[in-house]
Amino acid sequence: MWELWMRRALALAALAEGHTSPNPLVGALVLDREGRLVGEGFHARAGDAHAEVGALRQAGDAARGGTLVVTLEPCCHHGRTPPCSEAVLRAGIGRVVIALEDPDPRVDGGGIRQLRQAGLEVISGVLREEARQQNRAFLHRVRTGRPFGILKWAMSLDGRTALPNGASQWISGPPARDWVHRLRSGVDAVVVGGGTVRGDDPLLTSRGRRSPEPLRVVLSRSLDLPDQAKLWDTAVAPTLVAHGPDADLRRLPSGPEDLRLSACEPQQLMEALAERGCNQVLWECGPELAAAAIRQGCVQEIAAVVAPKLMGGMAARTPLGDLNFSAMDQVLQGQWHQSEPMGSDWLLRWRSGS
Amino acid sequence: MWELWMRRALALAALAEGHTSPNPLVGALVLDREGRLVGEGFHARAGDAHAEVGALRQAGDAARGGTLVVTLEPCCHHGRTPPCSEAVLRAGIGRVVIALEDPDPRVDGGGIRQLRQAGLEVISGVLREEARQQNRAFLHRVRTGRPFGILKWAMSLDGRTALPNGASQWISGPPARDWVHRLRSGVDAVVVGGGTVRGDDPLLTSRGRRSPEPLRVVLSRSLDLPDQAKLWDTAVAPTLVAHGPDADLRRLPSGPEDLRLSACEPQQLMEALAERGCNQVLWECGPELAAAAIRQGCVQEIAAVVAPKLMGGMAARTPLGDLNFSAMDQVLQGQWHQSEPMGSDWLLRWRSGS
Repeated sequence: MWELWMRRALALAALAEGHTSPNPLVGALVLDREGRLVGEGFHARAGDAHAEVGALRQAGDAARGGTLVVTLEPCCHHGRTPPCSEAVLRAGIGRVVIALEDPDPRVDGGGIRQLRQAGLEVISGVLREEARQQNRAFLHRVRTGRPFGILKWAMSLDGRTALPNGASQWISGPPARDWVHRLRSGVDAVVVGGGTVRGDDPLLTSRGRRSPEPLRVVLSRSLDLPDQAKLWDTAVAPTLVAHGPDADLRRLPSGPEDLRLSACEPQQLMEALAERGCNQVLWECGPELAAAAIRQGCVQEIAAVVAPKLMGGMAARTPLGDLNFSAMDQVLQGQWHQSEPMGSDWLLRWRSGS
Repeated sequence: MWELWMRRALALAALAEGHTSPNPLVGALVLDREGRLVGEGFHARAGDAHAEVGALRQAGDAARGGTLVVTLEPCCHHGRTPPCSEAVLRAGIGRVVIALEDPDPRVDGGGIRQLRQAGLEVISGVLREEARQQNRAFLHRVRTGRPFGILKWAMSLDGRTALPNGASQWISGPPARDWVHRLRSGVDAVVVGGGTVRGDDPLLTSRGRRSPEPLRVVLSRSLDLPDQAKLWDTAVAPTLVAHGPDADLRRLPSGPEDLRLSACEPQQLMEALAERGCNQVLWECGPELAAAAIRQGCVQEIAAVVAPKLMGGMAARTPLGDLNFSAMDQVLQGQWHQSEPMGSDWLLRWRSGS
C-alpha cells in the first residue's frame, strides 16, 4: 500500500536531478493521521533544506501522529543542516516509510535506529531498487570515492566515430545532439582530453538547461592546448584544466582554473572530482582517453548513439582504443539499460556488469 | 473492405518464404458470389502451380461469379506453367483484387489488361506497399538483374568484429546465432570470401531449416583455400567456388562446383547468381569483401547484431573496410528497418536509402 506514495516521493526527488551533488536526490511527503497528503518536499540543492524538513514544515501540526514517506533514510548527523531524525521526532510523526537505507558512513542505519528507539514504526525497503537506481551516482561515489562515469559517443552503424581524414560533423542528427545537451544537464562535470579541444573546439554545455552549467574538464598530459578555445571562456561555464605534477604551467591557457593531479590519469581525476562534490561525470573524449577511463574503472555506463550511416575505412576512428584483451572470455560484459529510437538515430545505453 | 482478405493472401504467400526463387512469393484466395471463402493457394516453389491456380482449383464451381484476391498481378505468359489470366477467365471469376502489379517485363500490366478486356472488374493496389515489401528481393532482382543483398555481422558495442589477435568466437549469444540460421533459411545463397574459409571454417547452413540448404558461395581471387573445410562437404549443402578468369584451377578444392567470372568482383558474382535464379543472398564475409560489395551496390540491407560487450583495440577488426569517403555528406545513408532485442544482444536492421 506504500508503493504509490513512495512512487510520488521518488518523483518529487527527481525534480532536482543533476542539482544536489554531492548530496543524494531525496523526496518526502507527509500523510496525516487519516492518511491525507498534508506536506511534500524534495532536496533542491546542497545547503538547502532536506526533503523531510520541507515536507514536515508544510504539514505543520497535521504531521502529529501521521506518516512520513521518504526515499532515503533520514540523516542523524549534523552536516550543513541539523539532523532530520530530530525534526521527525519533534514533529510528532508516528510512522516513517523509507525506500533506501543511507549508505553514508555517518548515517548507515543510525537514523532508523534512532527513530525506532523513540517508539516510531519504521518500514524500510519500499521500492528500494527504484530508489537505488535514482541515486546510483551518489551511491557509486559513496562506495568507491569516485563519481559515476558515463561515456558517450556517436558512431555510424559500422562503428566509426570519424572518417579516415578526421571528419565527424555530424554523425548523429539534431534530436540526438539535443539529447546530449539534456544528458549534460544531469551531470556535474563533462570531461574531454586535449585532443578533443584541439580537434573539435567543443562548447560542452547543456545550452542553459542546467544552472550552473556542469564543470567542463580538460585532462591534458602535455598542456599542448590551443590559445583560443570555446572552453576558455568561463563566462559561459566553469572550466578546469587538469594535468600531471610535471606539466609546464606556463602553457596553461588563461581563464580556466587549473588542477594539479598526482598523476595525469582518469582515476586521479575522478578522485579529485569526487572530492569537489561531483556525483556523476560525462566522458566525451576520444578513443584513447576513453579506453584509459574504462581500464581504470571510471566508466559505469555507455550511451552510444548509432546513426543509420556507413562510413567505412580501416583507418577511420573507432570509439575505443586498446583494452588489452586477447580472448573473448576476457572482454567487458554488460547489459542494455535502455534502447530507443532518437530521431533517425538509435540510442543504446549500456551498464557495466560489475 | 478488401484489405482483410489481402492480408490473408499475403500471409498465405509468406508460407513459402525463401523457397520460390527465381519466382516471387504469391498468395491467393477465392470468395464465392456471396463473399464466402471457398479456395486458398500459394506458390510453393518454382515449377509448382501458381497461387491462383491452386485457389481456383480448390474453389471449383464456387468460383463462378466470385472474387479472386491475389497478392501479385496474374501472369499472362506461358512460362513453366500456363498463363494464370486464362485460368481466371476459364473459372468464371467476376472480380479480381490485386495488391501489386507484376514488374516482370513479360507481364507488366498485361495480365490486368487481359482481364479487363474480358469484362472482369479489376481492383489493383490493395496493400501494395506490404506486397512490395514481401517481394522486395524478387522486385530488386527483376529491376537490377542482381539479387537483393543482406550483409550480416556481429559486433561489440564499440564496433569490433574481432579482437586484435583475431579471436571472435563468440561475440553474439546463442539466440542471435540461432537467428542467423533462420536468416539463412530465407535466402538463396550465402557468400563469404576466402579469408573467412581460412580463418573461421564456417558451415553456413540453416541447420536444416531450409531444404535444400542455401547455396554456399566462396568468392576467391587467389584460390588460396584450405584442402579441408566444412564447405567442401557438399553432402550437407551445395557449395560453389567463384573465381576470376585467370585463377589457377589446379588449386580448386574437390567437391564444390566452380564458377568462372569475367572478373572476380561482387558485381559479377551477383549477376551470375541472379542468372542461376537467386532472388536474395546473404553476405557473411570479412570487412574488405563487405566494403567492396557495398561499393558495387550489392548490399541493400544490413543486419547488425550488437553485443553488450566492449572489445577495444585500435588494431581490432571492424565491420567494413574503406568506402573512400572524405566528407560526412558523402557517407551512405539509410533507415532503420527493424530494431529489437535478441537474447542479450540487440539487432539493428538497416536498409539502404537508395
